[in-house]
Order: sequence, then structure tokens, then C-alpha cells
Amino acid sequence: MNGTGNPVSHIRPALIEAPDKVDPPTRLALEHKGLEVQNIIAMGLNESCYPPSPKIIEAMQQNLSLVNRYPDAQCPHLTDIVSERTGIDRNCIVWGNGSEELIKGAIDLSLSPGQGLVLPVPTFWGYKSMVASFEANVAEVEMLPDGQTNIDGILGAIHNDTRIVFLITPNNPSGLMVDQAGLDEIVHGVPENVLLCVDEAYFDFGLHAGGPNVLETLKQRNAPWITIFTFSKAYAMAGMRIGYALCSDAKLAQALQKTTCVFNVPILAQFAGEAALLDTEYLDFILDQTANGRDQLFIGLKDLGLEPYPSVTNFVSTPVPMNGRDCLKAMLDKGVQINAWADPGYENHIRITVGTESDTETCLATLKKVLNSA
Amino acid sequence: MNGTGNPVSHIRPALIEAPDKVDPPTRLALEHKGLEVQNIIAMGLNESCYPPSPKIIEAMQQNLSLVNRYPDAQCPHLTDIVSERTGIDRNCIVWGNGSEELIKGAIDLSLSPGQGLVLPVPTFWGYKSMVASFEANVAEVEMLPDGQTNIDGILGAIHNDTRIVFLITPNNPSGLMVDQAGLDEIVHGVPENVLLCVDEAYFDFGLHAGGPNVLETLKQRNAPWITIFTFSKAYAMAGMRIGYALCSDAKLAQALQKTTCVFNVPILAQFAGEAALLDTEYLDFILDQTANGRDQLFIGLKDLGLEPYPSVTNFVSTPVPMNGRDCLKAMLDKGVQINAWADPGYENHIRITVGTESDTETCLATLKKVLNSA
Repeated sequence: MNGTGNPVSHIRPALIEAPDKVDPPTRLALEHKGLEVQNIIAMGLNESCYPPSPKIIEAMQQNLSLVNRYPDAQCPHLTDIVSERTGIDRNCIVWGNGSEELIKGAIDLSLSPGQGLVLPVPTFWGYKSMVASFEANVAEVEMLPDGQTNIDGILGAIHNDTRIVFLITPNNPSGLMVDQAGLDEIVHGVPENVLLCVDEAYFDFGLHAGGPNVLETLKQRNAPWITIFTFSKAYAMAGMRIGYALCSDAKLAQALQKTTCVFNVPILAQFAGEAALLDTEYLDFILDQTANGRDQLFIGLKDLGLEPYPSVTNFVSTPVPMNGRDCLKAMLDKGVQINAWADPGYENHIRITVGTESDTETCLATLKKVLNSA
Repeated sequence: MNGTGNPVSHIRPALIEAPDKVDPPTRLALEHKGLEVQNIIAMGLNESCYPPSPKIIEAMQQNLSLVNRYPDAQCPHLTDIVSERTGIDRNCIVWGNGSEELIKGAIDLSLSPGQGLVLPVPTFWGYKSMVASFEANVAEVEMLPDGQTNIDGILGAIHNDTRIVFLITPNNPSGLMVDQAGLDEIVHGVPENVLLCVDEAYFDFGLHAGGPNVLETLKQRNAPWITIFTFSKAYAMAGMRIGYALCSDAKLAQALQKTTCVFNVPILAQFAGEAALLDTEYLDFILDQTANGRDQLFIGLKDLGLEPYPSVTNFVSTPVPMNGRDCLKAMLDKGVQINAWADPGYENHIRITVGTESDTETCLATLKKVLNSA
């Protein structure tokens, strides 16, 4: 304590009560990691197990001496590419420090303290902290027993004071995605005075697995929407902090922009992002490899007698016959970082990120030992 | 418009009314820039005119292939160094996506809509947008006629419902810093139930110019405080987005942490930041060169018959006998990017970032032409 008379009264109570941004299992996993990722098999954070494309590395390398310059938060070159590919107007595209800054911004722009927000759970833990911090009146909608998002539940949870509804597809930590029928139901069912915000962090994997095109469905919605993407997963750029939002209209995009920091996207992330979007061959490589690795992991878990969720992403979750956090700790002790679900009611659930073939083999062998000695 | 029936009602009104994050003169300056910084003499954004230290570039180069990994938002290695140098406990240090994320966080953690915030002006324009977005009840305190921060004015503006008071020293765009007497007055004068937040973006320059040590003074304050630093200025890392806050106590730091994004600081920025803090020789080089360049710029402006503010930073502001934005546009047309003050009442003020010796020469010669033909 550096001399504080009254250490609490000056802090907004909601923020004291809000959970930490990092959930307890992930905190456990991180504390054994820091920046020393070399010493552990890292299958805990849904990072890409493949390095970024050589073209991404080259793009950063060539621009290292420019980092004394502020980045342009409008990311003009990236915006051109995304606009051309998606058919979304340049003025409806907003860039963020990863997708989280934009998720936060979507809440910030739509909701005052006490107003309603609908959130399907379990999902990315950061949401729990964010919605508490914004003092949202949160309606959590539990996933169905098979892990699918409860679309009817989401629509039923909307009330007069609801300002924003979230849909996360494919979802983390279930790994499942909403199908076209469910998508149609929610896109047209959320009232037109309510903002529908879709989190598509795992978009590329879902599409590769044959999932519906969320954006094309959203374009038919005659009411406000935002859909959010990240370079952290399929582009192997988690460490660079870049994501973007496509918005239904320019006014909404302008409001979202105001919620972000002025110079939020690192200049090297902009060069890297451009290289990433243009290197479609490497993206295909990652998506193909990830699908293979996911099959390997899924089958391996089945072979251990487990019943994993049929994920379409770069991770697989499964119940285990022991406490998930204990499993995480035992695995960490043996040099393999996995994760566990943080939500109450799922204490026996673990989540494993797709690894290289040999890492997945090691992980499965280690898990077998851990389960046997539990 | 991608099909939006009612484009406004779903957006929080305060956010529609909030000014853009980028002030109009800077927007003017940026629109001629994008990422093509090579084609212009860039003296408009208070960036370092020197490239980052070779050790910073090397640190990034060596870790390019790690960018598929999430960064640890706790920045453990950086925290060790800062804690050791400042004597501030590790648990009282918070890292951000540049200093702006932390400034925003300080408001977020302390203030509910309608509550009071005291802001000395003119200052970094981002504040105007942030405080409007938070629906703060803002008391703006105008600088004194000589450009100094009005300390008595700040203390006089505090009322029963004030939650946070800002002090920016050295200040942008005046370039002036608060002296020890003023600092003592504010550090001990802000009531103990009010958070005092100091923005020290230009800290290194102020200290190099003989200014007081704000942190040592804050340590004597028996009430909550936060002081915020950035790597964007003296460390020539504006493009990497990294800053940090020192807090009076761990509870405050924990609340601040909850306002930030989970993985906010790029992994390369962490490696770069460590190299930056350790390369004190290069920092001294930048500070010495900047002081020389500032003298050159100040004397040059005087020689043009102007009355610049006696800046202690990496920029110099001055009134000119014409409209500042017109001056900015005329300079841009001739290949030199400067800036103009955005605040009403200062329409004839321009701000020029310290450049290399030859760039400053070119800038002064260009300004002479612009003023002569105005």
C-alpha cells in the first residue's frame, strides 16, 4: 500500500464485484506460462499451433523500423481488402485491439447501466467481466444439454429493455456452431430496436467445416447488427492484437469507433494483417491441418472412453470423470497446458486446443495417465 | 446502408453526440498520411523523429515467429523492471494498449454517468471524446494566459460529486509542465475520496528538462492516485501500443485491470518494451537530441517573429498570424505535416513536433513561406 486512506470508496462498486477478465482455470494455465512458451506443450489458449505465415513474418520484418510512427486506426489498406471481399461499405468497418475491444465497444455503444443484455453461456469468460463492469441487466441463456446454443431461449429472454443480444458462433468452449435454420431464426427474430452482435472469432473454422455464412444472413436483417472477427485464431496472430467489426450501417460503425482507442491497432499488426489476408494458401493450410488435428484429438478422446463435443473449431471440449481444474493442474505438472471450463455446472469439463500431430499424441497419452491415476 | 430500419435508436445518445476520437486538425493531417509516412516530413503527431533503438528492433526480430501466441497481459518481465526502478509494488502496476486504454480505464473505474470529472484544457483531444462517452459531468479548467496549468482552478472546480481529477504534465499541446510547488498543491489538495490521475505521456522529456519527479510527490499523497506512462514518445514505439499505470494500491490496480482487454499488449511490444527500458543509453540519446532539436525549433520560430510556448517536450506550440488549420493545410501541401490546436479560442495556434535538424530547417523555411503568403 502506497499511502491510501480509504482504498475502496473511490472505485465503482460494480467494478469491484466484477470477476477478473481471466477466468480461474485460464489463470492457472497462464501462471505456468508467462512468455516462456517454449518449455511447455501449449494447448490451453486456443492459439494456432502453427506459426504465422512466412509472409506475415516477412511483412513485419520489413517494417520494424517504422514502429516510432503512430498506426492509422482506420487501417486503410486492410479496410480496402475486407470491403472488397465482404461487400460491406468501407464506412461500416471498424478495427480493434483484437476482437475483445470491439465486443466491449458494442456493449458500450448500446447499453446504459441497468439495461438488458442477452448472453448465451457458457462462452468466452471475458464476457462475464465486461457485462458486470457495464452494470448490464444480464439474461444468461444456458446451452442445450447437447452443447448447442439455445436459440429459442435467447429469443425468449429478450424483454422491453433489452438493448443488445449476443450470438457466439462457433462458440467457445463448446466448439459447436449454429446451423442455418437457427441463424435465420435469430437474425429475423431479434426485434429491430435491439442490436444483434455476433462474435465470429472461430468463423474460418466453422465455414471450413461446412457451416452457414453468417454475414450473408445478417445482410437480410432489417435492423442493426454487428459481426466481429479476429486474426488471433486461423491467422495465427493472437500476439498481435487485431480484429475487426462489420456493421449494418455507418452510424453504428461511427459509434463503435468512438468506443475504441484512437491508435488501437499496432502498426506491425496492420502490415501483418494485410499479408495474412492475401496469403489464402497458408490459411487453407492451417484450416486443413486444424481439421485433421481436430479429428485426431476427437477420436483419441473417444478412445479414452470420453464423450467429446463434436467441435468445428481449433479445440475440443469434453467431460472427464474428475474435476476439470484438477485435471488441468495434473496435466500442467506433466508439461501439457490444457484448459478447463470456468462456468458453474461444468466443473468436470476440460478444453483442449488442437495441436500438431505429435503434441496431440503426447497430450492424449498424458491425459490417459492423469485419468487413470485420478 | 446494409438494411437498417431505424439507424439511431439503438445507439446510446451520449455516444452519438461525443466528438470523434481524432480532432479535426489531426484528422486533416492524418488523411494525407495513412501508412505512407515515407513521402512526407512527419512533424504532426508528436512521434519520435528517431527510429526505435536497434536493440528494440532486434528484440522484435528475434520473436516474430511467436506471434501466434497470446501475450501475457500482466507483462511479468516488464513489471519486474518497472517495480524495481520505481519502488512500486508489482501488484500496483497495470499495462495497457498505449496510455489511452489506461486513461479510459481510470475514468471507467471511478465514475458513473453524471458524476464529476475535472479536466484541464486544452489537452490531448482523446479526453474530450472519452469524457463525453462516459457521460461525465465535466468541469474544464482553462490554462492560464501564459500556457501554464491552472492549479488553483483545478482545485476550485472540485465539488461534492467529483470522482476523478486529471493532471497532464508535461501537457500537450502547451508543452509546459507543472513545477514542484504546483505539484505539491494539487497532490495534497485533491480530497482523499477523489482519484487523482496524472497523465505523464511526456514524462521523460520533462524530467530531462529539470522538472519535478511526480511519482515521488504522489507517494506522499494519503489518498488514491494513478500515474500513467507510455512507450510512444521517448522510446519511439508509438506504433507498438504499450503503456503502463502505477497505482496507489493493489485494489485500485485490480479495478483498473478489469477495465482493460484481457490480452491487450502485443507480444512483440513486450519484448520491445523490455529492450527499451534496458537501453538507457539510447533513451539518453533521444532525450539529448530532442532537447537540441527543440531549441532549434524554438529559436527558429522566434526568428520568424513568433512567440512560441517554452516547451519541455518533443514539440513546440505557437500562435501564428493566421488560422492554424489553414496553416496546417498549406504546410501539408508543401510536404510538411504539422498540427493545429483543436480547442475553441486557440484557432491561431499550431503545434510542431521536434524533427531531425534538416527536417526542422525545412519546416521552418516552409513555415516562413506560408506565413509570408498568408
